[in-house]
Amino acid sequence: MDMKDITFNQAEQIELWAHEKANNDLCVSFRIKETLFSASSAYQRVQIVDTAGYGKMLFNDGIAMLAERDEFIYHEMIAHVPLFIHPDPKNILVIGGGDGGTVREVLKHPSVTKCTLCEIDELVISACKKHIPQTAACLCHDDPRVDIQIKDAVEFIKKTGELYDVIIVDSSDPIGPAAPLFGAAFYADVYAHLTERGLVVAQAESPFIYQDEQKCLLEIIKKQCGRVCIYNFTTLTYPGGLWSFALSGKGDFVPGGVCDEKRLRTLEGELQYYTAQMHTAAFSLPVFQQKNLAGLIDPCPVE
Amino acid sequence: MDMKDITFNQAEQIELWAHEKANNDLCVSFRIKETLFSASSAYQRVQIVDTAGYGKMLFNDGIAMLAERDEFIYHEMIAHVPLFIHPDPKNILVIGGGDGGTVREVLKHPSVTKCTLCEIDELVISACKKHIPQTAACLCHDDPRVDIQIKDAVEFIKKTGELYDVIIVDSSDPIGPAAPLFGAAFYADVYAHLTERGLVVAQAESPFIYQDEQKCLLEIIKKQCGRVCIYNFTTLTYPGGLWSFALSGKGDFVPGGVCDEKRLRTLEGELQYYTAQMHTAAFSLPVFQQKNLAGLIDPCPVE
Repeated sequence: MDMKDITFNQAEQIELWAHEKANNDLCVSFRIKETLFSASSAYQRVQIVDTAGYGKMLFNDGIAMLAERDEFIYHEMIAHVPLFIHPDPKNILVIGGGDGGTVREVLKHPSVTKCTLCEIDELVISACKKHIPQTAACLCHDDPRVDIQIKDAVEFIKKTGELYDVIIVDSSDPIGPAAPLFGAAFYADVYAHLTERGLVVAQAESPFIYQDEQKCLLEIIKKQCGRVCIYNFTTLTYPGGLWSFALSGKGDFVPGGVCDEKRLRTLEGELQYYTAQMHTAAFSLPVFQQKNLAGLIDPCPVE
Repeated sequence: MDMKDITFNQAEQIELWAHEKANNDLCVSFRIKETLFSASSAYQRVQIVDTAGYGKMLFNDGIAMLAERDEFIYHEMIAHVPLFIHPDPKNILVIGGGDGGTVREVLKHPSVTKCTLCEIDELVISACKKHIPQTAACLCHDDPRVDIQIKDAVEFIKKTGELYDVIIVDSSDPIGPAAPLFGAAFYADVYAHLTERGLVVAQAESPFIYQDEQKCLLEIIKKQCGRVCIYNFTTLTYPGGLWSFALSGKGDFVPGGVCDEKRLRTLEGELQYYTAQMHTAAFSLPVFQQKNLAGLIDPCPVE
């Protein structure tokens, strides 16, 4: 027998997969083409990979932050819902969100005169600037409205002399560097730095996989801000699909269905997910979520 | 050195995971406690596993069909949207859906006098009856309204002498035994067997991961039935989260926001996802899906 008679089971190359464990029982995996960036800051491990199906993805401490292919959903829904509820949003503060996606959406509103990004970890910003311009290009250009502050938001919000029309808490999960952003003291300071009709919106976890974490955050916001609403969207890369944002603020804002159609028309060609209908629809909650949050959230008035 | 001085890296037991590859690039994995059932029929491999996080799950040919923990979302949305749009649904046909979840929801409507289940694969029914009573118990009990037909639906719908108020195509994907259920000839026969104001609803894949498949199915339904609408829901176990149902029918049905509140109140304690608001909200489509399906789907009239 010759060597040439022996057939090896040859693959062209090994398959590389990024596995994101949502918990001990569920894992979402993305096939990756290559690792573009991997380094540690004082706060976390920052990794950017190029995936076969979802474009470039950012992982902080192994948790998926964004994928190029579907990041528009998260970023449009965290930014445009409060910015279209507010009658005239001018001064905006984005906390976290070093990838730039939320700032990019905020800057689409012509009324905005200043958008401050307060990110604790410069490494996230620099890595995204280099590898994910789709979200981070807005942090590179010389838009005079953008003000980048590399600071701990808990300290920043205490000391800032400014008031904000919308504060967007675009944070990762309540572990690691973002943990204090899920605290009562932080939301007391946030509320104190809102303008008269100011709004605050925050990443509020999964109503299904992280029910307890969601409830806990809403309790904190309600206690510090007096009231809280919640709205949902579907993420295609986070585990479990259904995801939420918490919304609160000063004044008599109406959570659902108050998108300013005239202002929306000026943005229409630039949006891939958000519509006036999707805005209203997002405040419709499934029965199980309503039950879990009963007495805690303001009911959405739209029938 | 004694053997007792050597420390082995001991785990209590091996971890078992069920990996479901949505395509070559995305995989969702569930940690399993044990395999409860695994056998092949003439049509497919049927497997039921008990998972750590999602209860019992049914896989046909390796594709997740349902998980106990979130199946209520799929089954409530496929059944109650058409049954609440129809003014008086009496005679219902469920095609596929051998797990029983859709039949269970249909039977909650007091107006229903008959619910026929046409499932090609008896193995799915018998396996679910034994291992997933949460969905299949309704197929065991002696509800005189339930009529189980173990038949190829393509043949059944051709030959049936009955007309149906609602036909629910609760099928798996367009590969394997369900492939003919995505065909033009099938939908011509379905349409011919609807009552005057009859409706047909069909599992319509993911608007994101399976855009082309969704568009193709909608084109077939529109051609055979004259018009087609689409509505979305979030599945927590299917890959990619966002999922759709196609809806068509005879008569001048209005897709969104026409839930009969009085009838709904009689079911309220039995529902975990569906509300009148969720019904309307489901017809709100993100921009990218509207663009992909422009000219094909009836726009939802609700603003």
